[in-house]
Amino acid sequence: MLNRRVILSRRPDGLPTAADFAIDEAPLPALGDGELLVRNILISLDPGMRQRLSQVDSYVPLIPIGDPLTTTTLGEVVQSRHADYADGDLIVGFHTIADYSVTVPGPLTRRITRTDGDALSHHLGILGPTGLTAYAGLIEIGKPKPGETVLVSAAAGAVGSVAAQIARIKGCRAIGIAGGPEKCRRLIDEFGLDAAIDYRGRDLAALTAAIREAAPEGIDVFFDNVGGIQLDAALDVLTIGARVALCGLISQYNASEPVALTNLFKLIAKSARIEGFAVLRHSDIFPTALRDLSRWIASGQLHFREQIGDGLDQAVPMFLKLFDGSNDGKLMVRLASD
Amino acid sequence: MLNRRVILSRRPDGLPTAADFAIDEAPLPALGDGELLVRNILISLDPGMRQRLSQVDSYVPLIPIGDPLTTTTLGEVVQSRHADYADGDLIVGFHTIADYSVTVPGPLTRRITRTDGDALSHHLGILGPTGLTAYAGLIEIGKPKPGETVLVSAAAGAVGSVAAQIARIKGCRAIGIAGGPEKCRRLIDEFGLDAAIDYRGRDLAALTAAIREAAPEGIDVFFDNVGGIQLDAALDVLTIGARVALCGLISQYNASEPVALTNLFKLIAKSARIEGFAVLRHSDIFPTALRDLSRWIASGQLHFREQIGDGLDQAVPMFLKLFDGSNDGKLMVRLASD
Repeated sequence: MLNRRVILSRRPDGLPTAADFAIDEAPLPALGDGELLVRNILISLDPGMRQRLSQVDSYVPLIPIGDPLTTTTLGEVVQSRHADYADGDLIVGFHTIADYSVTVPGPLTRRITRTDGDALSHHLGILGPTGLTAYAGLIEIGKPKPGETVLVSAAAGAVGSVAAQIARIKGCRAIGIAGGPEKCRRLIDEFGLDAAIDYRGRDLAALTAAIREAAPEGIDVFFDNVGGIQLDAALDVLTIGARVALCGLISQYNASEPVALTNLFKLIAKSARIEGFAVLRHSDIFPTALRDLSRWIASGQLHFREQIGDGLDQAVPMFLKLFDGSNDGKLMVRLASD
Repeated sequence: MLNRRVILSRRPDGLPTAADFAIDEAPLPALGDGELLVRNILISLDPGMRQRLSQVDSYVPLIPIGDPLTTTTLGEVVQSRHADYADGDLIVGFHTIADYSVTVPGPLTRRITRTDGDALSHHLGILGPTGLTAYAGLIEIGKPKPGETVLVSAAAGAVGSVAAQIARIKGCRAIGIAGGPEKCRRLIDEFGLDAAIDYRGRDLAALTAAIREAAPEGIDVFFDNVGGIQLDAALDVLTIGARVALCGLISQYNASEPVALTNLFKLIAKSARIEGFAVLRHSDIFPTALRDLSRWIASGQLHFREQIGDGLDQAVPMFLKLFDGSNDGKLMVRLASD
């Protein structure tokens, strides 16, 4: 049986392009002990995938040329050689981007029940890595207090829009940065933020001035997905004791030269900190987080968008949307019916 | 009565030079209510002075051209119009660099007793801002646990050498970075560190390799006085949950172009943080800190050097030693006998 896979055909130099990828067909290996064969139903397309394509960060193992890409997927177990899983189980885990994946269940693997009442796609987004990342980063790292001002970059994006809305739910003033007037309008009209800043066409000085205008008393918490001049500008407007929850640096992943932070020493003046986080280190709060997120969705306090492409051919075009700003919600591709 | 003062004659462009300063004589103003006239005995020369000379950081008020420099000094009150201070009191505070200063006592002002048993100079150094900065930054921000590995930059310097020794006292492995073989020898022989790294002649890759060699299991705490490639290299060797206590960025103060941190996103991978601090925000621990520091000096566990110039003419040459690496301990100048 031949299995269609999205493979890396060459390492991107700067921005990834369609020519860096290909779809091939490869025979499925026989299952070993403890392994599962998963029929992928939905795949998630995340900024973090970029780091495994070429040497922008030495800590993440690179995907070898010719190997399939990997991401979080939701799929059905169609063959199990693992005692804890049976045929027909639905699981979310870190798998190859392919019609079928062979996997050993690990700490990232979770079972989903069809009776959850939520759309399956939620488990890759708002009730999956996206929502959990926003929740853990804002609550555990940002530690916002009611009345504080929270700034979020990539605030129209999948993680950012949730982080900003949680800030409002927690009684904070929420300011979002996004690219273009349409996304900025959405921050106000759809996500209910208090202010929106369009980073396009703004240099460091102009962006700093815009943040200062939107937050005259300064930024207490910055949930940053972007880095670069957005981080540099925010550092200039921090309050004393401010927390920067560093979630991602998407502006830097494709940059040939990283941006220098001219305001790094504001951290000293303001006794402020930049703290990175990885959602998996906060698994202790996942039950609480999922309960809160579900409750906020049900009560209409939490809005989110999903943008779901159709078919394996759409995996690469959808992934590339992350970098040209044309994404419009949490990006996924449906490979099969559930 | 004319008062000799060290004034700023022009703003340094990059490294400060002697031509940026002058000594003038100005009449002393009459004392207002609540003011003190202080005869300065000892003045401290600190990296932080650089930031008030030209626009490397917009948060610190710049010293106007023609105005006297300011720093921490120890002096005798020779005239008091403040109820809490009497003629003859010895105080440490933030004052002009001049034979005499007029000051309003503030949160930075503390009274010193002649019967302390310590040399007066200690109150500007090991039992003053220097020792307190090292203690607060390492203990409160770095939070070292016994058995952890602590890296310190500018480890032969006044603050760094104390921070590194406290790390050892607290049961950590301490690694110092310094410039040149002589200072590196001193880290081992005089301050008792476990390893020393000479940053001179090492680029980012070589410095990273040297840190990794000295700390094969990674850096748990980095007490950083320097920034630039020393910070960038250390970020690459952090352990999970590591803390960078950001004390200063002396490599950047005179740099026309700040160095980009290519390893900033290691913070994400390692759930690590960079936290700035200002010693004055930790005044609650000063009594404990001064008791510990005094005890460690008395027991011979804590070593430090003072380099004391003689006379107001030496203020600028001693200050410039901070930037060419020729300083040899805590830099002070004695202006008068006590």
